[in-house]
Amino acid sequence: MAGRSADDDDRGGTVVTPSAEFPPLEPAELDALRRVGAHWRVGAPPALPVDPTLDRYRNRPTPGRFSRLAPIALFRPAPGAPAGRDGLVAAERADQPDSPLGRRLGRLRRVLLGPPLASAAVLHERMRKLVALPVLSSDLLSSVAYGPEALLTVLVLAGSGALGLALPLSAGLVLLMVAVGISYRQTIPAYPHGAGSYLVAGDNLGVGAGLTAAAGLMLDYVLTVSVSIAAGVHAITSALPGLTPFAVPLGVLVILLLLAGNLRGVRAAGNLFVLPTYAFVAAVLGLLVVGYLRAAGRGFAPVAPPVVPATEGLGLLLVLRAFASGAVSMTGIEAVSNAVPAFRTPEWRNARTTLAWMVAMLVVLFAGLTLLIHLAGLVPRPGETLLSQLARLTFPTGPWYAVIQVTTALILLLAANTAFNDFPRLLFFMARAGHAPRRFLHLGDRLAFGNGLVALAGTAVVVFVAFGGHTEKLIPLYAVGVFLAFTLSQSGMVVHWRRHRGDGWRRRALVNGVGAALSGLVLLTAAVAKFTEGAWVVVVAVPLLVLLFDRIHRHYRTLHAALALRPPDRAPPPTAPGPAAGPPGAPEGRPVEGEELPQELRHLVVVPVVRLNRASMRALAYAVSLGRPTLAVHLAPEDAEADRFREQWRAWGDHVRLETIVSPYRAVVGPLAHYLEALHTAAPELVLTVVVPEVVLRRPGHRLLHSRTGQRLRRALRALPGVVVTTVPVHVPD
Amino acid sequence: MAGRSADDDDRGGTVVTPSAEFPPLEPAELDALRRVGAHWRVGAPPALPVDPTLDRYRNRPTPGRFSRLAPIALFRPAPGAPAGRDGLVAAERADQPDSPLGRRLGRLRRVLLGPPLASAAVLHERMRKLVALPVLSSDLLSSVAYGPEALLTVLVLAGSGALGLALPLSAGLVLLMVAVGISYRQTIPAYPHGAGSYLVAGDNLGVGAGLTAAAGLMLDYVLTVSVSIAAGVHAITSALPGLTPFAVPLGVLVILLLLAGNLRGVRAAGNLFVLPTYAFVAAVLGLLVVGYLRAAGRGFAPVAPPVVPATEGLGLLLVLRAFASGAVSMTGIEAVSNAVPAFRTPEWRNARTTLAWMVAMLVVLFAGLTLLIHLAGLVPRPGETLLSQLARLTFPTGPWYAVIQVTTALILLLAANTAFNDFPRLLFFMARAGHAPRRFLHLGDRLAFGNGLVALAGTAVVVFVAFGGHTEKLIPLYAVGVFLAFTLSQSGMVVHWRRHRGDGWRRRALVNGVGAALSGLVLLTAAVAKFTEGAWVVVVAVPLLVLLFDRIHRHYRTLHAALALRPPDRAPPPTAPGPAAGPPGAPEGRPVEGEELPQELRHLVVVPVVRLNRASMRALAYAVSLGRPTLAVHLAPEDAEADRFREQWRAWGDHVRLETIVSPYRAVVGPLAHYLEALHTAAPELVLTVVVPEVVLRRPGHRLLHSRTGQRLRRALRALPGVVVTTVPVHVPD
Repeated sequence: MAGRSADDDDRGGTVVTPSAEFPPLEPAELDALRRVGAHWRVGAPPALPVDPTLDRYRNRPTPGRFSRLAPIALFRPAPGAPAGRDGLVAAERADQPDSPLGRRLGRLRRVLLGPPLASAAVLHERMRKLVALPVLSSDLLSSVAYGPEALLTVLVLAGSGALGLALPLSAGLVLLMVAVGISYRQTIPAYPHGAGSYLVAGDNLGVGAGLTAAAGLMLDYVLTVSVSIAAGVHAITSALPGLTPFAVPLGVLVILLLLAGNLRGVRAAGNLFVLPTYAFVAAVLGLLVVGYLRAAGRGFAPVAPPVVPATEGLGLLLVLRAFASGAVSMTGIEAVSNAVPAFRTPEWRNARTTLAWMVAMLVVLFAGLTLLIHLAGLVPRPGETLLSQLARLTFPTGPWYAVIQVTTALILLLAANTAFNDFPRLLFFMARAGHAPRRFLHLGDRLAFGNGLVALAGTAVVVFVAFGGHTEKLIPLYAVGVFLAFTLSQSGMVVHWRRHRGDGWRRRALVNGVGAALSGLVLLTAAVAKFTEGAWVVVVAVPLLVLLFDRIHRHYRTLHAALALRPPDRAPPPTAPGPAAGPPGAPEGRPVEGEELPQELRHLVVVPVVRLNRASMRALAYAVSLGRPTLAVHLAPEDAEADRFREQWRAWGDHVRLETIVSPYRAVVGPLAHYLEALHTAAPELVLTVVVPEVVLRRPGHRLLHSRTGQRLRRALRALPGVVVTTVPVHVPD
Repeated sequence: MAGRSADDDDRGGTVVTPSAEFPPLEPAELDALRRVGAHWRVGAPPALPVDPTLDRYRNRPTPGRFSRLAPIALFRPAPGAPAGRDGLVAAERADQPDSPLGRRLGRLRRVLLGPPLASAAVLHERMRKLVALPVLSSDLLSSVAYGPEALLTVLVLAGSGALGLALPLSAGLVLLMVAVGISYRQTIPAYPHGAGSYLVAGDNLGVGAGLTAAAGLMLDYVLTVSVSIAAGVHAITSALPGLTPFAVPLGVLVILLLLAGNLRGVRAAGNLFVLPTYAFVAAVLGLLVVGYLRAAGRGFAPVAPPVVPATEGLGLLLVLRAFASGAVSMTGIEAVSNAVPAFRTPEWRNARTTLAWMVAMLVVLFAGLTLLIHLAGLVPRPGETLLSQLARLTFPTGPWYAVIQVTTALILLLAANTAFNDFPRLLFFMARAGHAPRRFLHLGDRLAFGNGLVALAGTAVVVFVAFGGHTEKLIPLYAVGVFLAFTLSQSGMVVHWRRHRGDGWRRRALVNGVGAALSGLVLLTAAVAKFTEGAWVVVVAVPLLVLLFDRIHRHYRTLHAALALRPPDRAPPPTAPGPAAGPPGAPEGRPVEGEELPQELRHLVVVPVVRLNRASMRALAYAVSLGRPTLAVHLAPEDAEADRFREQWRAWGDHVRLETIVSPYRAVVGPLAHYLEALHTAAPELVLTVVVPEVVLRRPGHRLLHSRTGQRLRRALRALPGVVVTTVPVHVPD
């Protein structure tokens, strides 16, 4: 982010910055801020009684009274700070919890996830092409392990005679792959900061289209994890049928391992995935070479498949379903364009090269496998994958069958990792635009989006378990979300070229237009042909998600408007705001707390006193020491107790005005809250500061022995306007 | 309470007062309070900006801004208050929750439990003898429904020949009943404020004995509920065997109904129980009359019982087990002496009379039934209770069998109510002495001890379900706790008479001594003979409970000592307290927060600022308006953001000193807490007031969209000494 202007953020750039949680003020806000500041009438500020830079303290480190850490080690002066002023940097240990259990958990976390990474490390976490290729392509390439099978599984429903259609359908799919690949290749340089469908569609087609694409992508990522893990586990159980009963727990375990790996951060995760991807490509290429050599030996004569009776007629719908099922081989083709900023510089060129390699490998593997399966006369059957059958046939002896199965399982299990890369990034961009909860902006101490990773892993586990880990049941849900995102993204690019009208824009628009049209065709096919088989889930979920994103956005917008600074030279709060001179921040939500100028605040300090002990005395002393009008309130369950309390009050010296309220029904919190509300209604211009003593107990067991009136009171008072709650803790050794 | 001196409380009197949660100060505390007050140097207090009596407000009721209640109606001047000063009384509505859901729940609660009862109503909730008798005796009298059967069930293990021993054993039990009854009769006038075993044993034998008795009694109460409900359900299933599969849910339902009835309050509960108890007594007396008339018809010749083969030898242990099992008929005999203050005046005399009636009725029913069962030659068998067999035999036709079973079931189901009366009272007394959690002191708005009632019902349900609702499995656990309490209580009375040496103290001591010796004998018998059958649970649980009570007491004592007022003319807090001039409150726990005098407090106000908006501006304005040295702290994830923030700060006008801390690992709460700790260590004499703005959202769904940093910060700061947290709410419409 260093060196980039704030413009990038406004244009929806896809640079991940640790400061995204702290967006800069808009010009209107900055202007309001200036005008607010001009109205503040603060006298000469009192001198601080302690050096806030801790300079003085840095020279004599002693542990704090309640802590075994010497706080000195926790802060160091910022390197470039002028003369020690304005520059403390928290050290790693400043984030460590204080309790023994917390420290132990923190240590375990370090062992599992590694030491924290500073924000400055974010630029170094970039990938070379040779690393990026396996990380980003595992999703795409691994889908050849189930794509051809998904296609044939549908065709064979019309009997073994229909299997001949596999070749023309595959040729169509290869065309589609190339067209979509070229289309995406164009997108990358146009969006050098990352060209996720959400950003491209939102940028060019409007927010609604962006959110629709995002919803489709989110479902896609969840399903990528579930389908890949399911297929990977199936590859294992094809080779070792004894493991079949443990398929579901095995899959869940792998998802959790992926989560842990990704919580460690980008580069560590990348290194994990280099070897298996290349090994898989090599193994399948080996399988193809040996297979075609054998087929050449018999003159490429196809083996007749076993006769399978037809259970459905060979209609157009079936062919379309087969095509849409086979199209799942293309899932993951968008991974590169999403992740442009994760490449080393020059990002867009490296990304484009990587995409070209990926599509070429996909075409070779997909076409090669489909044709070889046809030549070998293989037919899908439950219990063993087609790839496993092919490998068994091709390598009847020797370790090669095992190599194929192991690398297939590995790449499938790891393919899910692409989703772990992209899902949290998508949520980050959505959260930055206010369409997702803001917590997804937070970069964890390993520079990973922990919240997004956990959300993905959790949802994927639920889907995986709900579908019992069966690949073929998940496939129908899969294609719709993917192609929805493809279509919107490519259509967006068409609009983009039209809008910018650079060199050769017509040609580029045509390329993306073809990609969009083909993707849209597959989307329609998948949604219609597989609607009853599960696609309806996606068709229903996408609008619901869009609605949810919109509601979230509306909440943040309302909140932002309500919290936006307004210069205080307007009418006082109770009257309706005039139409003139309003800043852009829309005054729709005007809170009761209208005063923002310190010189206008009028105080009344209220101290609820239950009984007279150290805790209440401390609260009273604190309240009185503020030097503002102070009122003590006592709630008595009956008159006798009220009298007794007033006696004690007089014995103490009656230093503070006391008001006793008899609560004949023995409730404390309710009447007190209502009394404060009555005070507020009587004098709405006052800020009521309620000073509540709170006895702090260390052991949770001991907390059970107390009714925690303070906390209940605080909760009851939260809703009251103009009431500030001050908690004066009294620490008790136990 | 009215008219009684505070002495009663000190002597452990058993008057239930709503003020028990607010115990009066001890003389030493009052003295310390005076001396603390003398050290306060408060100038003329600033005039209050609002009338705290709300007098002014009372004449123009308008609803509050955030509430549809007009607060005026919630407070009325106290009737006898001098000239409207010092006397507000909260009306019933002042305790009503504000939210719509809360109001609806409140209304449901009113329908179920009735309107709240004012504290002043506590005196009217007394019982006449004719009402007290059924309420308090249902436990005792109902146990004849399972007592004789429990005795015979053990004897028959030695074959039908051993059944003849039932008569001498029963005679022994009758003697025991009379002796214990007379013993308790003596206790009542000696403890006119209630003579629970806990109080009597604790008073005379020491705290340990009192707690042991309390532990025994608590187990007894839980088992009373479980056993009575189990036997009552058995009476129903004896008559209607089709209901047997629903025995457990039926019992749980009845326990919950009892809970609801008791939450309504004492008198309402009493009225529920008058009829069934008298009906049961009448029905069993009818059974006895008819049965003996028939027996007279055949010259009182006993029918030979069916031959049952012996499964155990007839040893001393078996006879003792039979005796101890039969002794469960006496459970509940202590109910009257516990509940003396619930009687109308003169309490002790009414209670004594009631006890005499109860014991007389017990002896008649128990002896009559045992003899009649012997004459009829009946033998216990599973599936049908002995009482049911006897009734079927005596009334072969007509509705009388049904009447017996229905009244038996009713009295048994309601007998559990005695425990619902006594268990919460016991907890109240224990809580008042600091041996139980203080929440058991709280009288709910129906003047019932809701917490105690819920605790009893919950435990009883667990025990009932755990034992599958089988009476015979619960009986072995039952006797030990009861007779433990009897023994300790009677022994305590012996000490009491010896100590007071009034008229005829030797005779009285002898009577109680005999009661104690006999009870102790049964206790030993039960504990030894039934140890392996379940009594070991009680033998283990009692010491554990005593330990728990002791730990609770120790915590409250430590806390009390730590919170006790100490006059401030001693050395300043950091030095160790000298041995001289210490008040009795033991200075073992000296909190860091040593200052109690307002003139000695030195302030530093710290405002954490995340970004500049209305919320943080309000917090800043509030902080500055306090007129104390103020410091703003900003945590930045990276240097660039820190620079940007400082720019904004200067644009605003730099009214408050700002310290930025770069948190390179992006954590916020941890570094901030550690920074405050460092400030505290640098200047421990300062009170750090942390002003946290908090955006208050109404909808819980919206709260999920925010990370609630304020709350996390408050939690992290709780443990820090000398840090006061002030929450400035900003209400946002949503």
